[in-house]
Amino acid sequence: MNTMMDTTTELGRWLSGELEVVSKTMSLHLHNNHSGVNELCGELATYHGKMLRPSLLLLTWKSFGGDRCVQPDSVVKLAAVVELIHLATLVHDDVLDEASIRRGETTIHCLRGNEAAVMLGDYLLSSAFHLCSTVKSPSLNLLLGEVSSTVCAGEMMQLYHRNNVDLNIENYYQIIQDKTAALITASCTMGGMLAGASEQTLSAISTFGNSVGVAFQIRDDLIDILGEPSITGKGSGVDLEKGKVTLPIISMLHKNPNLKPDVYEAMRSGDLLGLRELLESTGSIQFALDEIERLVDLAVDSLGGVFSTGAAAELCNLVQQLKNSP
Amino acid sequence: MNTMMDTTTELGRWLSGELEVVSKTMSLHLHNNHSGVNELCGELATYHGKMLRPSLLLLTWKSFGGDRCVQPDSVVKLAAVVELIHLATLVHDDVLDEASIRRGETTIHCLRGNEAAVMLGDYLLSSAFHLCSTVKSPSLNLLLGEVSSTVCAGEMMQLYHRNNVDLNIENYYQIIQDKTAALITASCTMGGMLAGASEQTLSAISTFGNSVGVAFQIRDDLIDILGEPSITGKGSGVDLEKGKVTLPIISMLHKNPNLKPDVYEAMRSGDLLGLRELLESTGSIQFALDEIERLVDLAVDSLGGVFSTGAAAELCNLVQQLKNSP
Repeated sequence: MNTMMDTTTELGRWLSGELEVVSKTMSLHLHNNHSGVNELCGELATYHGKMLRPSLLLLTWKSFGGDRCVQPDSVVKLAAVVELIHLATLVHDDVLDEASIRRGETTIHCLRGNEAAVMLGDYLLSSAFHLCSTVKSPSLNLLLGEVSSTVCAGEMMQLYHRNNVDLNIENYYQIIQDKTAALITASCTMGGMLAGASEQTLSAISTFGNSVGVAFQIRDDLIDILGEPSITGKGSGVDLEKGKVTLPIISMLHKNPNLKPDVYEAMRSGDLLGLRELLESTGSIQFALDEIERLVDLAVDSLGGVFSTGAAAELCNLVQQLKNSP
Repeated sequence: MNTMMDTTTELGRWLSGELEVVSKTMSLHLHNNHSGVNELCGELATYHGKMLRPSLLLLTWKSFGGDRCVQPDSVVKLAAVVELIHLATLVHDDVLDEASIRRGETTIHCLRGNEAAVMLGDYLLSSAFHLCSTVKSPSLNLLLGEVSSTVCAGEMMQLYHRNNVDLNIENYYQIIQDKTAALITASCTMGGMLAGASEQTLSAISTFGNSVGVAFQIRDDLIDILGEPSITGKGSGVDLEKGKVTLPIISMLHKNPNLKPDVYEAMRSGDLLGLRELLESTGSIQFALDEIERLVDLAVDSLGGVFSTGAAAELCNLVQQLKNSP
């Protein structure tokens, strides 16, 4: 997947400047008296990505005129906070279970072993809460605490349903809403809160964020099935290896329950190519693509009634890119 | 190590009632819509211990007359918060690195594999921040964020110095101050803050907490060397296995640098008995015991000038128990 932030546009250039300040804020905040801590934090460079969550926070804040009224310090701090939480989940996602190790998969980013990854993730999580607390807004702290618990609960549910080919679509949506959409929604909501948006507007922003978050995760799951690692910069088939059952598989099995043994066998043997063919031939990839389109349109519509500034148009443009072929 | 809370005394009985409310608050707060999350949280029963941190928070709060002026709701919540943070560190301490697994040590509490333990610990950490945020006190949130980062940094430093027989005493103290004493200090400080203590008093409480925390960790490290698992309820020799170099070893090597190869060999082969004999014969166990005594006296003295209520006397009694033979 290409970076969602196109720095050749005017907005892209504007945000890239803002995001640089966010990155610096993160580095400064993570800096520690212990050199060993800084050394380990240095490993985070490999995790730096699109900064989608800070971008959404900054764009939402700007869309609601926040750049005309609020101290930008808090905005930059909160943008750093949501990225730190996201980084913590990435680092902890890389901790291997014993089964994986026994399968010899120790080549997945291990940093310096599981224990170091656990401590680094904890440090990121704690640092995020600490940085958020420096803004001294009880409502922002409350939202961050709530959303972080939700993210963890979603991850736990995902683990619970590992290898469960009977996972139904409601539970799948609940899992991705919790593990992914919750933080994306909160990033947008925080942007709105910092801009002083009304309750009604915040509710529209929340609907927007949730649709974007769910669409984003469905697309991310598709990339794992379809993506060429050389282009996406990610491994493919990781979900299959980890027994993660995602939307194309669920919709296929819903319509073709007789394919359950084939899916189970593909998961057992890690046969990504075979699975991909099954999904293509049953129209299940297209089903997921249609669902992304529906969600993106829903997201854009939900903001339509609320505001129409230039920044908002850019926000919608950004989100439209989720429709691009994975 | 026996429980530090003796329920046969008047105070023990009083606190046991209070601690029950704290436990219930924790359970209620951790309860989730996902049954899989609740199932995993059920595994925490094996981690329930002395509740030292909530006890210190409650006793400090009471010592400064907090029970006469402040809404007890916040106190119970914060007592739950510090225990949740502590539980999170315990759960994450049990995540194994690949080396440990290769050494066949999968019998250490693994819950349901590394990944589940990581997610559960994250859920505890996030829930702690969430619960703290419901009290809507920016200063308490700030303190919690700061202390949690410090704890993680301390754990990372400990990992960094694994198998380092050249670890000097200053770095050892820094590590245990960060990974252990910081949260114990914060527990006491929060009790004081909730009771409305003055800056000067909070400073004395902080000195008290730090001395107690350092003494506690030195004692815990001694238990790992000397304790009988059947009595302490803990494994012994875990530090040796994990390459954790603690005070008796550091002081022995400071006086007898020629013993370094012996220590290194004991660590390599996991020879706890041999190490214990070395430490006994060089007076290094006694050195650590003397240090605990010095720290406990320092702790008690630091509160002496500030107050002298019944609860304070009980607080000092509680801390005096750290002098008991491990």
